[in-house]
Amino acid sequence: MTAGKRLAVVLLSGGLDSTTVAAMAKADGYRLLALTIDYNQRHRIELEHAARVATALEAERHIVLPLDLRGFGGSALTADIDVPKTGVEPGIPVTYVPARNTIFLSVALGWAEAAGARDLFIGVNALDYSGYPDCRPDFIAAFEAMANTATKAGVEGAHFRVHTPLAAMSKADIVRAAAAVDAPLALTWSCYDPTPTGKPCGECDSCRLRAKGFAEAGVADPAL
Amino acid sequence: MTAGKRLAVVLLSGGLDSTTVAAMAKADGYRLLALTIDYNQRHRIELEHAARVATALEAERHIVLPLDLRGFGGSALTADIDVPKTGVEPGIPVTYVPARNTIFLSVALGWAEAAGARDLFIGVNALDYSGYPDCRPDFIAAFEAMANTATKAGVEGAHFRVHTPLAAMSKADIVRAAAAVDAPLALTWSCYDPTPTGKPCGECDSCRLRAKGFAEAGVADPAL
Repeated sequence: MTAGKRLAVVLLSGGLDSTTVAAMAKADGYRLLALTIDYNQRHRIELEHAARVATALEAERHIVLPLDLRGFGGSALTADIDVPKTGVEPGIPVTYVPARNTIFLSVALGWAEAAGARDLFIGVNALDYSGYPDCRPDFIAAFEAMANTATKAGVEGAHFRVHTPLAAMSKADIVRAAAAVDAPLALTWSCYDPTPTGKPCGECDSCRLRAKGFAEAGVADPAL
Repeated sequence: MTAGKRLAVVLLSGGLDSTTVAAMAKADGYRLLALTIDYNQRHRIELEHAARVATALEAERHIVLPLDLRGFGGSALTADIDVPKTGVEPGIPVTYVPARNTIFLSVALGWAEAAGARDLFIGVNALDYSGYPDCRPDFIAAFEAMANTATKAGVEGAHFRVHTPLAAMSKADIVRAAAAVDAPLALTWSCYDPTPTGKPCGECDSCRLRAKGFAEAGVADPAL
């Protein structure tokens, strides 16, 4: 244990956003407990990338927690629904996984309380607001309020905080922020629907948003 | 699908409380989606009892969701800490699992949203208030508020409700309520630490509270 450094639980998918957030938490002086939820998303290659990122950022621990949400259905990311390839549409996309961030943050809260951490980091950002309800600041505030009534630590006076440093950022802002904290973007993975040879498809929402972010920031994507 | 009957997700451990709640939900006219979280609790025999209860109550579906919280540590129910056998003590017990009900309700919320259910049932009750922070009405209210900001359904105007029909009941009240709705208590399991031959230990908090409840209600425990 490194003296004087606080622990934080960071939700790490292995994508651009969560990797940037983890690097920002580390730059802020936190020791990282990296939590990857394996919810049987179609893009399992994410899990390998998450492990590489956790190692690169010298996380104290990295837990990959299997949590099979496919039985519930209701999302193109976990069920047999086609991932859209025709561009980013307004409204809540079919890639929405019901209550995903609620579930992820709840599990992160459990680890945080057990480990004595009070800080959670999650890579939600402005681009997701219109699409995913559980990426909005209102949701994060409601989750924090709930967390402080839910836990032994909260009842005893601790305050859990959910950090969303990307909340107000565009994808280009995130690429710039990543550069500022030397986030290992070469190790990240964003594609929802990789090709049979394991390359990003370049056509799903996630690939499109990533490419636009790098282009607007005037930076080459080191993962391509 | 039975016309006119609403779906409810019921957290079903296979114990006295959750079985009573499930039977109450059924008596209220709900079709049951029974959710059992297999969090590698020591008393795995609970899982078999949950399945029998779900069948007895004609649940539409019963999902047993593996969710291994042992890696987080911090509880006598999931880690290598002795279960207390000397009686119910004041304060938060070592059997507290960090953020357990938050995690369980979050997963239930995900299934509810995917299935079009708006009602969640959980068997928290007054006896737990002093011990487990995530059994208190304050927590339930905070969770409901969070759920309505977290979900696509909530954003579109639906209201999720967390039903806690045992909230104000003593264990004796629960035994009486169970009788009133013909809950299959003979199929339930409560012990935290069964004997090597698979019988309830009779000494853990859960066995003591159960025995006291049946005694006070003047009813013989059909599971013994």
